[in-house]
Amino acid sequence: MRVKFHQSLDELKERLLVMAGMAEQAIQRSIEAYRTRDLSICELVLRSEPAINRLEREIDQMALDLLAMEQPTAIDLRFILSVIRINADLERVGDQAVNIAVRVREMGAFANIDLPVDIPKLAELASAMVRKALQAFIEGDADLADSVFVMDDQVDNMNDAAYYALSTLIKDKPELTPQSLNALIIARNLERVGDHATNIAEDVIFWVRGADVRHHATPAQ
Amino acid sequence: MRVKFHQSLDELKERLLVMAGMAEQAIQRSIEAYRTRDLSICELVLRSEPAINRLEREIDQMALDLLAMEQPTAIDLRFILSVIRINADLERVGDQAVNIAVRVREMGAFANIDLPVDIPKLAELASAMVRKALQAFIEGDADLADSVFVMDDQVDNMNDAAYYALSTLIKDKPELTPQSLNALIIARNLERVGDHATNIAEDVIFWVRGADVRHHATPAQ
Repeated sequence: MRVKFHQSLDELKERLLVMAGMAEQAIQRSIEAYRTRDLSICELVLRSEPAINRLEREIDQMALDLLAMEQPTAIDLRFILSVIRINADLERVGDQAVNIAVRVREMGAFANIDLPVDIPKLAELASAMVRKALQAFIEGDADLADSVFVMDDQVDNMNDAAYYALSTLIKDKPELTPQSLNALIIARNLERVGDHATNIAEDVIFWVRGADVRHHATPAQ
Repeated sequence: MRVKFHQSLDELKERLLVMAGMAEQAIQRSIEAYRTRDLSICELVLRSEPAINRLEREIDQMALDLLAMEQPTAIDLRFILSVIRINADLERVGDQAVNIAVRVREMGAFANIDLPVDIPKLAELASAMVRKALQAFIEGDADLADSVFVMDDQVDNMNDAAYYALSTLIKDKPELTPQSLNALIIARNLERVGDHATNIAEDVIFWVRGADVRHHATPAQ
């Protein structure tokens, strides 16, 4: 019975990592769409969303069944609750990819100009946060999870700088408003990806250490 | 034993409603700050956030203890999982209030001009969604929860209209960029409040009907 239970936990973990891979790929594709202004990649991101949503429901159902049938306690209970939370965060990372793809599609109607914001770099940092938080989850490593919080400050700072630079550009060159506004919102979407990575890191710490570390920092703007 | 368990569930529900009251009040105050440009109200919102965060942790701990000690199944298990999710959504509603307060504080540095967006009306609609979702939770009424989804479309439409009107204003009068941008972001924050209300409504349906109704609609931009 216990062997089967632990096999089920491993299976749950594996499914969550598939979910993570899909969410990460969606972000990467949306940024590729931004970089190349290739609207067919936007469509790809939009079309992959239902599959992410389906997998979220499937993982939640697995977790719920395990809670109901196995009635785990202590660290196993915390693990399953963490999976439920991480699952929700990953689905929202997928939502951010969709939001970015929609913005890129909007930008397609305007000239592709140079903007004072390095969206791919911001995306790289936000994605690295997600990857590191998941690495911490795979290895059950709370110290590694800790290191995600520092990266979140960097993402927040980059986003603040983007806000300043883009609003200045808008004031100086109002004809560039549509592109600048869309880039500003994409930067915020990436900041939210970083916030989800922070949530995942907190869940790993909650699972491993049994401590609740939420709200160590101020929320995203 | 079972009597005590059901008392504990009632207590959990009560604490969640306190949490909801605090989150709603934070939104109301942030909008009052916007309406009056009273920065002391902004400070009030920022100072009330730690209490919301503390209560979130307390409720999660209560839910976790109930899962570990009582090992509930079926509808009781779904109820407790719903509380955990609703709790997280309410905390994020509080975060949105903080975000709005920070934006209002930024706007304090600029002239208080008439903007082509009715933020108080948008806030009223988003708050009404939260209240209706919570009413559905209190009464265990899945049909009432259904009605929240229609309201979400209205909030999304109002937000889209705000985006269009404000970006047009920025293009026409670039000197009004700071105020317009901040209002645009406040409108998006309110749209996210509506999204959280939608999540709560979905959790009520999941609890009552045992059905997972998530992702019936497209995500927010």
